[in-house]
Amino acid sequence: MKLLLVGYGAMNKRVAKLAEANGHEIVGALSPTEENDCPHPLFDSVNEGLPEADCLIDFSHPTLTKEVLTSDLNIPMVIATTGEKETLLELMDKKAETAPVFFSANMSYGVHIVTQLLETIAPLMDDYDIEMIEKHHNQKIDAPSGTLIKLLDAIKDKARPDAREVYDRSQLSEKRDKQEIGISTIRGGTIVGEHEVLFAGHDEVISVKHSAQSKDIFARGALKVAEKLVNKENGFYTYNNLGV
Amino acid sequence: MKLLLVGYGAMNKRVAKLAEANGHEIVGALSPTEENDCPHPLFDSVNEGLPEADCLIDFSHPTLTKEVLTSDLNIPMVIATTGEKETLLELMDKKAETAPVFFSANMSYGVHIVTQLLETIAPLMDDYDIEMIEKHHNQKIDAPSGTLIKLLDAIKDKARPDAREVYDRSQLSEKRDKQEIGISTIRGGTIVGEHEVLFAGHDEVISVKHSAQSKDIFARGALKVAEKLVNKENGFYTYNNLGV
Amino acid sequence: MKLLLVGYGAMNKRVAKLAEANGHEIVGALSPTEENDCPHPLFDSVNEGLPEADCLIDFSHPTLTKEVLTSDLNIPMVIATTGEKETLLELMDKKAETAPVFFSANMSYGVHIVTQLLETIAPLMDDYDIEMIEKHHNQKIDAPSGTLIKLLDAIKDKARPDAREVYDRSQLSEKRDKQEIGISTIRGGTIVGEHEVLFAGHDEVISVKHSAQSKDIFARGALKVAEKLVNKENGFYTYNNLGV
Amino acid sequence: MKLLLVGYGAMNKRVAKLAEANGHEIVGALSPTEENDCPHPLFDSVNEGLPEADCLIDFSHPTLTKEVLTSDLNIPMVIATTGEKETLLELMDKKAETAPVFFSANMSYGVHIVTQLLETIAPLMDDYDIEMIEKHHNQKIDAPSGTLIKLLDAIKDKARPDAREVYDRSQLSEKRDKQEIGISTIRGGTIVGEHEVLFAGHDEVISVKHSAQSKDIFARGALKVAEKLVNKENGFYTYNNLGV
Repeated sequence: MKLLLVGYGAMNKRVAKLAEANGHEIVGALSPTEENDCPHPLFDSVNEGLPEADCLIDFSHPTLTKEVLTSDLNIPMVIATTGEKETLLELMDKKAETAPVFFSANMSYGVHIVTQLLETIAPLMDDYDIEMIEKHHNQKIDAPSGTLIKLLDAIKDKARPDAREVYDRSQLSEKRDKQEIGISTIRGGTIVGEHEVLFAGHDEVISVKHSAQSKDIFARGALKVAEKLVNKENGFYTYNNLGV
Repeated sequence: MKLLLVGYGAMNKRVAKLAEANGHEIVGALSPTEENDCPHPLFDSVNEGLPEADCLIDFSHPTLTKEVLTSDLNIPMVIATTGEKETLLELMDKKAETAPVFFSANMSYGVHIVTQLLETIAPLMDDYDIEMIEKHHNQKIDAPSGTLIKLLDAIKDKARPDAREVYDRSQLSEKRDKQEIGISTIRGGTIVGEHEVLFAGHDEVISVKHSAQSKDIFARGALKVAEKLVNKENGFYTYNNLGV
Repeated sequence: MKLLLVGYGAMNKRVAKLAEANGHEIVGALSPTEENDCPHPLFDSVNEGLPEADCLIDFSHPTLTKEVLTSDLNIPMVIATTGEKETLLELMDKKAETAPVFFSANMSYGVHIVTQLLETIAPLMDDYDIEMIEKHHNQKIDAPSGTLIKLLDAIKDKARPDAREVYDRSQLSEKRDKQEIGISTIRGGTIVGEHEVLFAGHDEVISVKHSAQSKDIFARGALKVAEKLVNKENGFYTYNNLGV
Repeated sequence: MKLLLVGYGAMNKRVAKLAEANGHEIVGALSPTEENDCPHPLFDSVNEGLPEADCLIDFSHPTLTKEVLTSDLNIPMVIATTGEKETLLELMDKKAETAPVFFSANMSYGVHIVTQLLETIAPLMDDYDIEMIEKHHNQKIDAPSGTLIKLLDAIKDKARPDAREVYDRSQLSEKRDKQEIGISTIRGGTIVGEHEVLFAGHDEVISVKHSAQSKDIFARGALKVAEKLVNKENGFYTYNNLGV
């Protein structure tokens, strides 16, 4: 597979490495910022005569992604850029008329599976208390993590529209309310990322947990999607309808 | 709800206690063995003029269950007896023509949910290695637990027909084969019961885990099923079609 | 061993049951409140002619404990009462001149061991981030638990005098500070009690965890201490010098 | 610090990278095999006029380590080579007369801490059942891991000389014996390494766990030891007397 990278930051560098290890070819990287260490042909703009490619993988930023989505390029596109979600979704929808376009805010296949698990069981767990825990390294600035919020939204959408997040019980002196979803954020060392959801009931607890060991899971997920997408018809795809 | 207990062992004693705490009435216990400590009317045989009841809950043994299933009794029946599964299923099927009959070899609602989770995701996890771990108290004689085998069967049925269980790696000196499902059995103290299934992939692990704190989960499950079953039409039910 | 119970609440009821199961005799319970369901001789006051006993176990409240400590009673005493700690410690110190007196705010032997573990390793873990997590049932009102605070104090005393507890990261937007100890409180279902301490470093995490399955661990701990204490000389004892 | 590397395999490559990132200098690598990708001066033999160094770090094999230990070299030495333990220990003992020599079969500081924890508590846990669990990637050939055996030996030395390892309960039909230590080996995906020891008692479980996220913990441990060792007097050191 001939791959075009959109953006050449940490994530697409991993994509390149994994792709080549899997026998694919990187035909170029579209990156308006100067990249000194890029061993692949570099392109400043989508209009610059890009090489032929079977698929592009975009881990960049909304400005560049918009440029790609509004260009004449009509190859399979794996979009992993976050930010300006509404605008991008609209442009992807349009592009999907002339190319297969895949989007996910979290390219990890495992996180997708966990999301699906939660959507399956949350509606069956009315009698259980839900608590969510995430762990990350001590350099992470935001809390809770974006992935936890994604999982929380899945639970609320499917089963608990009126849930109320509780972040700090040390300030309360009352019993837990059924409406609550407790959220715990742990930070330490170099932990890459763990997400756990507990369903605690009468004399039993069910736990669903995802542990990441490196950020490669995102690069690997994008590559896996690309391998599927090249055989798809035009249209808009997510993990829910790609059939991975 | 007026409940008839079939069998009066440890489990139905718990059912009685929980049922009364929830406002239900125990109208009698069918138990051919003499029970000195039973505060409810005791009956030796199903032909002895049993009191009217809205539902029966059977935690007994195949002999007694067969007597019930072949009798003229046609009230909703929650059957939790294990052993002679083929024979009992056949008789339950027949009884289901004239009464609502529910059967599960594991009455815990949480274990049912975990089974369902595994059936949902196992087919999506071809690239992941599956390992199963169970923990129980130091008085347990069999290994692995019946619940682990139930979960294993669910995985094999849905996704891994050719899987091969591995119980002891200390005797091997070779890499793990994709076909393997490793099974670990931990015994210690008074642990009531934990079951965990790991899906280990590239740089990520997904875990689904059930922890029981007391055997009440089985009694509570049976009671919850009874509350549903009394409103059902004749037929054969399991957790999959009861709509709990 | 002939045991005198001071207080006859939930905890000493368990002590009585366990003691009798282990071949000990309950010679009476000192409890000023009327107890309808007490099968043992009941006494209103320490001056009422208490029966002879080898040891007393006190799970009561400061008022009653003070009455006992200032009385003429000079038998081995296991004191598990919490509240008015300074006053009680002073009185115990005095009583220790004429009787063996044991005190712990948490009678669980396992929690004692975990405390000791933390005291051993905390001073060796300067380069690691410490995070603490506790889980309890949804009826618990206070947060974090008293046991977590006990463990936290042990860590601060031995290794991190300047540590700063952080209960809620969702309100912060900054990297974790080395001085922080993150504290997470999880509430759900009927969880009896779990306490975990994480030491997160470069590419590794060490975890020390205690899980309780029932409150019997406190009753059992008190009984185990009593069995030791009856052979001790007068003096003040804790888990640190009892030699359990 | 000027460092000499003995051996230039995967582990010392990591040492070099980490050392340089921490401001140290690699003055050369002693490696009889041709190394094409080594950016440091390479030496075939210890007699070849090695550059001056403050310390050497040896992740090699017994043949090379023996050459070093029997040479005239008298600088601080961090030895992490495994195999021919008796012979090497004898030679290190001799070398310790003229240089500070440190040895550990597992250079991870965290694993050292866990070992120490187990040595501290195992003697206090007579009433608890011990179970050990380790998890590694699906390419690992030996089972259980060398680290698990090290932890097991620590427990047996300090508290359970008569313990009997049990690797497979599926072939037994009997209750757990107090003498047993159950050992479970889990293999899957790319798990770097987890080791857990459970102490399961009456209604409570204590767990001590170490999780490694990358093999850097060994390189980092060796470097940390080197930084200490350069200030030590001649003698033989381990983690127990180095004062890390």
